[in-house]
Amino acid sequence: MHSVQFTAQTTSNGVVERDFTVGGIPGVLWSPASADADRAPLVLLGHGGGTHKKWPAMTGRAHLLVSGCGFHVACIDAPGHGDRPRTAYDEQEIAALYRAREAGEPEGPIVVRYNAHLAERAVPEWQEALDALQALPEIGTEGPVGYFGLNMGTAIGVPLTAADPRITAAVFGLHWPDALAEKAQRITIPIEYMLQWDDEHIPRESGLALFDAFASTEKTLHANAGRHKELPRFEADGAVRFFARHLGRAVRTAA
Amino acid sequence: MHSVQFTAQTTSNGVVERDFTVGGIPGVLWSPASADADRAPLVLLGHGGGTHKKWPAMTGRAHLLVSGCGFHVACIDAPGHGDRPRTAYDEQEIAALYRAREAGEPEGPIVVRYNAHLAERAVPEWQEALDALQALPEIGTEGPVGYFGLNMGTAIGVPLTAADPRITAAVFGLHWPDALAEKAQRITIPIEYMLQWDDEHIPRESGLALFDAFASTEKTLHANAGRHKELPRFEADGAVRFFARHLGRAVRTAA
Repeated sequence: MHSVQFTAQTTSNGVVERDFTVGGIPGVLWSPASADADRAPLVLLGHGGGTHKKWPAMTGRAHLLVSGCGFHVACIDAPGHGDRPRTAYDEQEIAALYRAREAGEPEGPIVVRYNAHLAERAVPEWQEALDALQALPEIGTEGPVGYFGLNMGTAIGVPLTAADPRITAAVFGLHWPDALAEKAQRITIPIEYMLQWDDEHIPRESGLALFDAFASTEKTLHANAGRHKELPRFEADGAVRFFARHLGRAVRTAA
Repeated sequence: MHSVQFTAQTTSNGVVERDFTVGGIPGVLWSPASADADRAPLVLLGHGGGTHKKWPAMTGRAHLLVSGCGFHVACIDAPGHGDRPRTAYDEQEIAALYRAREAGEPEGPIVVRYNAHLAERAVPEWQEALDALQALPEIGTEGPVGYFGLNMGTAIGVPLTAADPRITAAVFGLHWPDALAEKAQRITIPIEYMLQWDDEHIPRESGLALFDAFASTEKTLHANAGRHKELPRFEADGAVRFFARHLGRAVRTAA
């Protein structure tokens, strides 16, 4: 088993941010600076396509979860993203995506296919990273684990959650059902699902179909008016409250 | 114009509850006990069918809004509900509803028809009550006004909101679109809409159609797994945050 190798540490606003690698994969772990971080719940963040582990949406969500709930929060770069090299296949699919975008052709078929490929590489990486993170004394194997990822973060997170019983609550959203619905049907943990009502890439019926597929008896759809990239900021606060409810710590700050 | 006549007052947990009548219609006004209640925003609560102004869901939401946001909150009994007499037509429709329920026949057509009738009586009553409430020095005409009502509270609230520009943010949900969609198309204020994904009375497509009908550029659907009466408790907290965002006061307590 690989172990977490810390490579850098900074602290801001009561949040300790530690860069690490695990089995050569770069990641970041955010934790409360205060002493009560021991054995706190852990939330895994899955970043979106074309971004990376320290994209503003990731650091923003991490700070909300650490400051609001006292959780540990971790993100690793997906294959071909952030500080990781791209394979020839990665380059080929990214080129195909840009061609479709410039030609005004649908991006969906390419994104669905490429994300399914990335998920096959990413799921075992996430499971190894989780093994290593739970070997840290301040995290441990007893506490609950959440997963929060939209777009490509959902393409990876749904098969990860279907495969790994350590994850007990998850926030997903903004994806097509094609490669995911069958795996969603095996997921029974509490789910919050975000969908954009006027998404120009994902047909409304497709987004609703993926939400419908989850077998969870406790699941909530948050559908907001607006296009694909117009998810309202307040949904991040909502996700923090979702994890506070399900991972067992009260939200500390007014939202 | 009628004025608010206060008839009783109690205080608990920092919330002043004052019974009143306006033009013979009984209502209740909840306000913060602290001095900063002056000119605070006002939220109108519309109760559901078969209940009344002091039903536990009403007093619960009122306490969340007063304690969490410092708002004034008001509810009046709908026609034929609470302390108000039933007409012969009310009795006839209620009997028809019970007959359908006992026979296992769809309740929807009766509820839709009866609620549309009640809304015609209730909308002018709410507008007169709002006139009178805004004449109170602690409320005034300058502050924003919200509306929060599900089920019959939506059947009355949608036409009320379409008719009255003083209402600037509203929470609706759990209703058929039949008598409401045309009025929803005239509503452009921020909306939060609650729907039960497995509602045994309201078909999923019908609930989604009413959400879709609102012309608001800012609207959010909260769809939860579960049957008609299984709306999760945490949705009341979400509604409080919605009103805090749109009526301009921060939530004071952790939620």
